[in-house]
Amino acid sequence: MAYQLYYWPTIQGRGEFVRLALEEAGAEYLDIGRMPEDQGGGGAMVRAFLDDEANARPSYAPPILKNGDVTIAHTANILMYLGGRIGLAPKDDASRHWAHDLQLTVTDFVLEIHDSHHPISNALYYEDQKKESKKRAGLFLEHRVPKYLAYFVDVIDCNAGGDTYLIGDTLTYPDLSMFQLIAGLRYAFPKAMARIEPDYPELTALHDLVAARPNIKAYLKSDRRIDFNENGIFRRYPELDK
Amino acid sequence: MAYQLYYWPTIQGRGEFVRLALEEAGAEYLDIGRMPEDQGGGGAMVRAFLDDEANARPSYAPPILKNGDVTIAHTANILMYLGGRIGLAPKDDASRHWAHDLQLTVTDFVLEIHDSHHPISNALYYEDQKKESKKRAGLFLEHRVPKYLAYFVDVIDCNAGGDTYLIGDTLTYPDLSMFQLIAGLRYAFPKAMARIEPDYPELTALHDLVAARPNIKAYLKSDRRIDFNENGIFRRYPELDK
Repeated sequence: MAYQLYYWPTIQGRGEFVRLALEEAGAEYLDIGRMPEDQGGGGAMVRAFLDDEANARPSYAPPILKNGDVTIAHTANILMYLGGRIGLAPKDDASRHWAHDLQLTVTDFVLEIHDSHHPISNALYYEDQKKESKKRAGLFLEHRVPKYLAYFVDVIDCNAGGDTYLIGDTLTYPDLSMFQLIAGLRYAFPKAMARIEPDYPELTALHDLVAARPNIKAYLKSDRRIDFNENGIFRRYPELDK
Repeated sequence: MAYQLYYWPTIQGRGEFVRLALEEAGAEYLDIGRMPEDQGGGGAMVRAFLDDEANARPSYAPPILKNGDVTIAHTANILMYLGGRIGLAPKDDASRHWAHDLQLTVTDFVLEIHDSHHPISNALYYEDQKKESKKRAGLFLEHRVPKYLAYFVDVIDCNAGGDTYLIGDTLTYPDLSMFQLIAGLRYAFPKAMARIEPDYPELTALHDLVAARPNIKAYLKSDRRIDFNENGIFRRYPELDK
């Protein structure tokens, strides 16, 4: 049976980290929010699933993955659940926790990226917190982006399995997320990333390696890949890109 | 062999969610940061462990749990790892993911609580982002606290195992975290919580039930429990408590 992904249809958002794993693995999945309404899809279906009072284990927010009777929420939790099933996670228990550890650091980074344009509240439009965004984004690019990128390079350097992947000598799901982070940061902050990224060539190489994987390459060219836009996590607001 | 917890010695912080689980279970553990320096403890040891280049799997930040050869970071990842080993997690795989799902929502909530006093950057003092904090904390108390608390009540309501715990009919580690959230919110926002909390009596009851567990009761009275203070996640700044 196909995995069912419940996520908003018009943004990459947090769901994209799940989509990339499903696409790389060639797994059969239904992207419910992006399916036509007459096939039971659409954003309203995602909302309905979230609010469904018959759900014994209600999720706080999408993305949500459904696999038969099992419902899993939170990007990192979904990826941990999927990883072993679709061949994108290490095998032993300690290494599975290690992959998850990296993914939770990705989660933290993603929230900081989001909050660079929403430092005060999700209840306000960006335009209503632009002044604070400029302050936050400046410090984010100065302190946080280099700290996170240096950390992931450190992980590659410490990897006993080689100097290419985050874990071992094969691709695992955190590598896919690393691709998405680099791609998204380049989109949101082209000027800053032109300055910052050259200090972290290991991550550029990992980005390129993932982008060249046949399934990912096909996905990125397909209309299943939603374009980056200013409703997602990575937003291009030139005034935040110093 | 005792578990080794690496966390900052002067705050409850994120480490407290791990301490509560270890204490409830009566597990043997060393709180490295809080041990005397002449016994190999102290904050400097936590920093040294974090920066140790011999670590093949470097952590991004404390809390970090060490169990023999295994090193685990991120509060929710640690709790998932510990949960089954110390009898505080459900047994089947889907339920373990469910417990983790709830803990990841706790993680998100904790970060929002923290950012209510640090909306712009960790690189700035609170005093240098007080104006923005007032704005963020106001909207946080208005929109986010009720949304999170209502969600956790929803989880209790949907629990097929009864109307007491988050999962099933016994205590699991997310219940302990719920206690800490309520206790911390009461500390940080006494006025707002006096207004908000009565709408969520299920959570008050869960808080009280956890506080009355013999091991937790003894822990809270002991000097192992650090007092809430203005260096932690939950900070009492009267100007943010409307």
